[in-house]
Amino acid sequence: MFESYWRKMGDKCTVVIAGYDSLSYFADTKNLCWFLEPKLEGAIKGLHRAVGNAAADDHHVVVGTGSSQLILAALYALSPQDEPEPISVVSAVPYYSSYPEMTDFLRSGLYKWAGDAQNLDTDGPYIELVTSPNNPDGVTREAIVVNRGQGKLVHDLAYYWPHYTPISHPADYDVMLFTASKCTGHAGSRIGWALVRDKDVARKMTKFIELNTIGVSKESQLRAAKVLGAVSDSCQRSGSLEFDNFFEYSKNLLAERWDKLRDVVKRSGIFSLPEYPPQHCLFTGELTVAHPAFAWMKCSESIEDCVKFLREHKILTRSGKRFGTEQKYVRLSMVSRDEEFNLLLQRLLAIQGRD
Amino acid sequence: MFESYWRKMGDKCTVVIAGYDSLSYFADTKNLCWFLEPKLEGAIKGLHRAVGNAAADDHHVVVGTGSSQLILAALYALSPQDEPEPISVVSAVPYYSSYPEMTDFLRSGLYKWAGDAQNLDTDGPYIELVTSPNNPDGVTREAIVVNRGQGKLVHDLAYYWPHYTPISHPADYDVMLFTASKCTGHAGSRIGWALVRDKDVARKMTKFIELNTIGVSKESQLRAAKVLGAVSDSCQRSGSLEFDNFFEYSKNLLAERWDKLRDVVKRSGIFSLPEYPPQHCLFTGELTVAHPAFAWMKCSESIEDCVKFLREHKILTRSGKRFGTEQKYVRLSMVSRDEEFNLLLQRLLAIQGRD
Repeated sequence: MFESYWRKMGDKCTVVIAGYDSLSYFADTKNLCWFLEPKLEGAIKGLHRAVGNAAADDHHVVVGTGSSQLILAALYALSPQDEPEPISVVSAVPYYSSYPEMTDFLRSGLYKWAGDAQNLDTDGPYIELVTSPNNPDGVTREAIVVNRGQGKLVHDLAYYWPHYTPISHPADYDVMLFTASKCTGHAGSRIGWALVRDKDVARKMTKFIELNTIGVSKESQLRAAKVLGAVSDSCQRSGSLEFDNFFEYSKNLLAERWDKLRDVVKRSGIFSLPEYPPQHCLFTGELTVAHPAFAWMKCSESIEDCVKFLREHKILTRSGKRFGTEQKYVRLSMVSRDEEFNLLLQRLLAIQGRD
Repeated sequence: MFESYWRKMGDKCTVVIAGYDSLSYFADTKNLCWFLEPKLEGAIKGLHRAVGNAAADDHHVVVGTGSSQLILAALYALSPQDEPEPISVVSAVPYYSSYPEMTDFLRSGLYKWAGDAQNLDTDGPYIELVTSPNNPDGVTREAIVVNRGQGKLVHDLAYYWPHYTPISHPADYDVMLFTASKCTGHAGSRIGWALVRDKDVARKMTKFIELNTIGVSKESQLRAAKVLGAVSDSCQRSGSLEFDNFFEYSKNLLAERWDKLRDVVKRSGIFSLPEYPPQHCLFTGELTVAHPAFAWMKCSESIEDCVKFLREHKILTRSGKRFGTEQKYVRLSMVSRDEEFNLLLQRLLAIQGRD
């Protein structure tokens, strides 16, 4: 979906890397995160200042190979090292479908998946993953079990950008995760970053990445620096053409898609979508509603297995079961290519026509 | 050390990446390793054909964020999934100093570090990491415990290239790991690759990388494809200038450094270095000796703590203890920049002068 914007930008974000550039493992030996390119750190802080979505300046920046690696790095850094039992990792239902498998696939003795944050059944320490806006349902979230004692929080803010949701306040949590994939669409670069308040936690996350991949691609970091810098620059250009401002351009695209989807869904009589309350957005200065990257669609009670039903109509979705909830919910992507999204609308419309 | 070569190559390996390139997570949905760039796969297979160091064509290629990630992916893929006890991971002393920590830092229930392969005390399944040529001592190795039953082997062949060691045969093991860091010097790119015979093992390694980082930087893959392609091309140019052939150029640099180091060490009377037997190299067609990327230096019995002794002379080394053996051994880098290497020689010479 973002490709059209970057094509319009032409060669403004082109990077040129010579054969002799960036040979070393190191980027800045004086930085706690020694493999973080100074240009990328500057671009990240500049972008958060331009958007106002996170208090970046008093946090340490840790770069990761996508935010997946940073979720694992945060679990490692926040787990007690010398306990006989692994710490419980929870997230409120519906939660990001990859959390359980990511947490448990190595059967770590440091942390283990414990399911829905609502049902946390320990008085001991735990880590809560707070995804806001939430994947899959786009809802703005706060921690659920934060006041229950020894909780540590990881805020996955991958979608806390003005094209997806109103920016209500600059987030200022202990560990905040972001990713270029969701911010600018550059998923192939595998660049995520964490803003970490505590120095020791940032150091341990850096250690995780050192043991896991000995740092993060320099080429991707340099390119992400250029792309994030271009997005920051575009935020300053208020008087120019609409598509110049990355977030406005992308918000308009998403709003248009959501309007079309809501129209088709309304006509169907079979499906329904969440409503999002209008909120004042600090970035646009307007009252806006969320336009999430995913649609969390509920199917009528008459349909038993919604994924199967939609697959029969050639629509691929992810079942609510994967997100810890009922199979009458499915997740649809709102950020696919135009052709794909239009096909989705056509096929949904065909169902409504037939049933 | 390799920088001078790449500078001489000028813009032959320059990559240009536009803002709209490589946005997707996917590289080739039909490939088992769905995030592997077809250009990189082609360059890897082409390079192994040009050098003759590994039978790549009948193996699956799995790309990783450096070979560190592939070591972990291999442990995951080769571990039994439903056993109550973790599988033992061993390597012969002296072993690569990061193996123990990489294996154990998440306290996985799938695998655990069990130390020196010579002392393996299990009749059950195990994984042996075979590093050949070995880091730290440059010795050509075979598996130690391969005939003891349920052993699985991972061959870490990071240094099995003609600038470091004679190529005696095309390696044809089940799981073979390589990395751009050691082959061409591009450590900042974090590109490693595994050649994997078994389809299921390759699929599980791919799954590990999916859960760990959802793929590998596209920018790094595209650049590595160009760099490895240039190295392959340089191998064909036998009649041209010496520095044109990457491996010959690098081998000459290393041979020169080893000569200088051996001279200084000989004069010292305090230190000694391993000798490597001359072997026929299939790549050069000559009888050559190894010129490892590290020098494994033994200190005289009179020096109790060799690292401390050398640090007092402003020489930073890694202790034999870190490699599972005695502290009278230290590892020195042979692939540092010229200035650094010359300083090392000067300081070693000064010790000899004083003692």
